[in-house]
Amino acid sequence: MKNHTEYLTIQTQQAREVRSITEQVKEALKKSEFRDGMLLVGALHANSAVVLGINDSKFFGDLQAWLERLAPARDDYQLGRGFESNPSTVLQSILAGPQVSVAFSEGRLDLGPWQEILYLEFDGQRPKRVVIKLLGE
Amino acid sequence: MKNHTEYLTIQTQQAREVRSITEQVKEALKKSEFRDGMLLVGALHANSAVVLGINDSKFFGDLQAWLERLAPARDDYQLGRGFESNPSTVLQSILAGPQVSVAFSEGRLDLGPWQEILYLEFDGQRPKRVVIKLLGE
Amino acid sequence: MKNHTEYLTIQTQQAREVRSITEQVKEALKKSEFRDGMLLVGALHANSAVVLGINDSKFFGDLQAWLERLAPARDDYQLGRGFESNPSTVLQSILAGPQVSVAFSEGRLDLGPWQEILYLEFDGQRPKRVVIKLLGE
Repeated sequence: MKNHTEYLTIQTQQAREVRSITEQVKEALKKSEFRDGMLLVGALHANSAVVLGINDSKFFGDLQAWLERLAPARDDYQLGRGFESNPSTVLQSILAGPQVSVAFSEGRLDLGPWQEILYLEFDGQRPKRVVIKLLGE
Repeated sequence: MKNHTEYLTIQTQQAREVRSITEQVKEALKKSEFRDGMLLVGALHANSAVVLGINDSKFFGDLQAWLERLAPARDDYQLGRGFESNPSTVLQSILAGPQVSVAFSEGRLDLGPWQEILYLEFDGQRPKRVVIKLLGE
Repeated sequence: MKNHTEYLTIQTQQAREVRSITEQVKEALKKSEFRDGMLLVGALHANSAVVLGINDSKFFGDLQAWLERLAPARDDYQLGRGFESNPSTVLQSILAGPQVSVAFSEGRLDLGPWQEILYLEFDGQRPKRVVIKLLGE
């Protein structure tokens, strides 16, 4: 078993945005030439997230609205302006999760028919990084 | 280090159900013959989840009620009938998490005394799949 | 690729507490002598959690208040006194997540500039355990 690493740089048009990165992860798996193993896709910022969900712009709207309902931007957080964005973005990252692990078998990601790997940006419009680390053989 | 893969097929009696799959994961570890490593247990559907929790039917009721409070089925989601179930099921999957990783050492799962691996079904009564991928030696 | 395991024992002063364990994880990576791979940091109790967040006591307050808003201690949970603490602590563990995986490359953790590994205690003042399992080379 060996390891293989890729980094993505994502710059969204909007401050808040959801997009599928499934294709980039498949590409990383292809480059690794691994057939079987496990990979980690992790956001390298405290104000973005990576989840498994549906690749549909309507769902992206539902997901964002729901995250804002559960962890709204508020003025009364203790964490002040030292941090780059409202603490709600970090709570949303913890709520959604900053990372997913995905198994792969016979060269293909073990994902269900509707499952895609989604990148969630809560404070974008600048380069953000994602690590893809594969352990496989 | 090598890898070993098992797939579970779970068909619940109810549309919504929680059950422990700890025994099945232990069985997979036994079959792998690995002593030390890490494993991933992942739901292969966008409307189910895998968490670490307490194996107690009273807790299952608390957990389901809480998930429905935080991500209720609503009629005003943008994602329409193209998807197989109400988008709330996908939000609940993201809230609970579609997967857990578990370390194992000397042939035993690294879990605490009350921790079990729970499968959460949000739209069952049909065959659903779970992957167990082990990396170990 | 090989594996390496460390266990931390954490006893907090308060029943509820947040602290960074990034340094302990870096120490475990150093001891493993691995350069590249993936590690899992997992709470071995159903009433604690491990997340990626900001190492700032003000944020810790925001995080705790938010978890209590979303999964408050209530008297009407079904799970009774058989369990060691209020079921809200288990729901908070599921909300925050009991574990994180972190990639490491060239001997360093793949974390963003603000990201640290935080241990969240919901029922402390006694020894609690955390596993750090590294797969690497």
